[in-house]
Amino acid sequence: MASRAAKPLQEFALIRGVKGQFSRHAPGLVQGIGDDAAVVETTVPIWWHFTTDLLAEGIHFDLNSAAPRSIGYRAAIANLSDLAAMGATPRYLLISLAIPKQVSQSHIYDFYKGLMTACRPYGVTLIGGDTSASKTGLFLSITLIGTTTKRRALFRHGAKVGDLIYVSGTLGDSLAGCRLLAQETSRRSFEKNRLPFSRFHRQFLIRRHLHPTARIAEGQWLNTGRLASAAIDLSDGLSGDLRHVCEESGVGAEVESDHLPLSPACRAYAKARGVSPVQLAITGGEDYELLFTVSPKLRHTLERQAKAHGYRMTYIGTIRPRRFGIQMTTQGKTQPLPQTSYEHFR
Amino acid sequence: MASRAAKPLQEFALIRGVKGQFSRHAPGLVQGIGDDAAVVETTVPIWWHFTTDLLAEGIHFDLNSAAPRSIGYRAAIANLSDLAAMGATPRYLLISLAIPKQVSQSHIYDFYKGLMTACRPYGVTLIGGDTSASKTGLFLSITLIGTTTKRRALFRHGAKVGDLIYVSGTLGDSLAGCRLLAQETSRRSFEKNRLPFSRFHRQFLIRRHLHPTARIAEGQWLNTGRLASAAIDLSDGLSGDLRHVCEESGVGAEVESDHLPLSPACRAYAKARGVSPVQLAITGGEDYELLFTVSPKLRHTLERQAKAHGYRMTYIGTIRPRRFGIQMTTQGKTQPLPQTSYEHFR
Repeated sequence: MASRAAKPLQEFALIRGVKGQFSRHAPGLVQGIGDDAAVVETTVPIWWHFTTDLLAEGIHFDLNSAAPRSIGYRAAIANLSDLAAMGATPRYLLISLAIPKQVSQSHIYDFYKGLMTACRPYGVTLIGGDTSASKTGLFLSITLIGTTTKRRALFRHGAKVGDLIYVSGTLGDSLAGCRLLAQETSRRSFEKNRLPFSRFHRQFLIRRHLHPTARIAEGQWLNTGRLASAAIDLSDGLSGDLRHVCEESGVGAEVESDHLPLSPACRAYAKARGVSPVQLAITGGEDYELLFTVSPKLRHTLERQAKAHGYRMTYIGTIRPRRFGIQMTTQGKTQPLPQTSYEHFR
Repeated sequence: MASRAAKPLQEFALIRGVKGQFSRHAPGLVQGIGDDAAVVETTVPIWWHFTTDLLAEGIHFDLNSAAPRSIGYRAAIANLSDLAAMGATPRYLLISLAIPKQVSQSHIYDFYKGLMTACRPYGVTLIGGDTSASKTGLFLSITLIGTTTKRRALFRHGAKVGDLIYVSGTLGDSLAGCRLLAQETSRRSFEKNRLPFSRFHRQFLIRRHLHPTARIAEGQWLNTGRLASAAIDLSDGLSGDLRHVCEESGVGAEVESDHLPLSPACRAYAKARGVSPVQLAITGGEDYELLFTVSPKLRHTLERQAKAHGYRMTYIGTIRPRRFGIQMTTQGKTQPLPQTSYEHFR
């Protein structure tokens, strides 16, 4: 780790502790934590993928309501999901933290544990970072590094008129889970009201919010099989993220609301709360599913292979010319897809 | 740039503006700002170097006293200097910002301008990052990516007993410049006292503080010529940074205080203020000079080549066995080198 800031001795102890606990040898790693820079070797022609996120206390998370482990876990998933959307294999991680006095060392370790729990299934190695004091809130910056073979990656650009739009998994679960958690926190003290739907559904939605999955294997499959013409991960919600694909590809899109994949739990939640499940699916962020476009010629290949792998991939609409705009069709009626931006934490 | 956080429309406008102004094509760059990850190609065996820094308002900089352009410039130099210490060529940059409401868009552009001014001489390309709101201070995270040929880099480990210790440039200037600035700010309003030394010296020291140089060419020369057995950049001050080299190499060190390279301006400042110039040289951080160790066999080669290149490289001491500790010799008297940690901003 670079030792840029004036570091009190406990900060060096933290770096040593993190190095001891989470740093390990990995293929290609020449120098991990402990020098001016981390060093990694490439021997074959390759594409490197870099994604970075800055998370701010009070904007992306609330230390009063979320456990540090969960904050770390979800921060890692957000970055892993970016690499999933490129079809890349995650490899190395750099973590920087600005830590206020009030945050204890054990909280910081818990945060790292959450991060590494999310990364471990993919063999991601912590190779560096930075730590600093903070006079205000806790801030984290994550840089995740991945690879693909040369000339083989999924981009936001590349969607063509007539391509079919697909999403993985189900949509809106994370937003429903987030609202359930918020409601429970605020009501716990004075009433015991529960939504009139099953504990199983409740647990499913909360789990989807607190322990989302990054669709790494699905992204790699779409990439190596050359199945997708464009891809993005659903972090800001379908409405916002589809817009990015359309902008970068210079196209429009038609979403068929009846096709949006909804979990039974999300349907039950929407019914119990009297809200539209389609609305949850369109505006809900942090589902970390993949949205991608597929040439009509590849439709059968895609669906056959998805079935063989056990991946849930759902057709939700079609790429249209740019002048069409971004529209949603509901029972034959077409109207503009609402332009919303998901608020990750309130 | 990854669009992780809920981004208000002005944030997208900022990303577009930054992309338009600072993003450009570069060798090996496949995808810059505008997708889930930045993509870079490698075709030959190579070592990649990654360094990252998190800068916090009130810890590393003060928006009331420092111009955003200067903050950006110095943040870039800190990272460039890390790569200089590896002997690497800087290539790509990722910048993340958490921006409080009070900070204007033009301040943010100025910050980017400062960053890119520092990076331009080296052809570094901005390839990605993240932006977020902040409920408290301004936070920046920089990740700089560089390369060296395979199996050729400078590390902190590698110093051997008997190796000679060298530094580039002069030491303590930045700290003197920092103190001059602080004094002027606090006094300007009520008195016109100036230190009794020349305007030229004053300007030199302030310039060394506000516009430091990263020793990229010097690092590359030491690396490709296999001249240094270990290296680090002086960001925390000689005392702290020499300690890192000794720890990683498992050795001790003897510094000869008479040999420490001091600029005429730093000497004049120390005299005028009645402080020890050696103390400034040992404890002063942010000089961004290189400290490196050289086998005695290579001494003449190093000094001859340095002279030919016009690099100022000064012998300041010798690597000793670990049990010797880290000592400083002054006029025949040896005592432990004071253990200090430089405070970058007060």
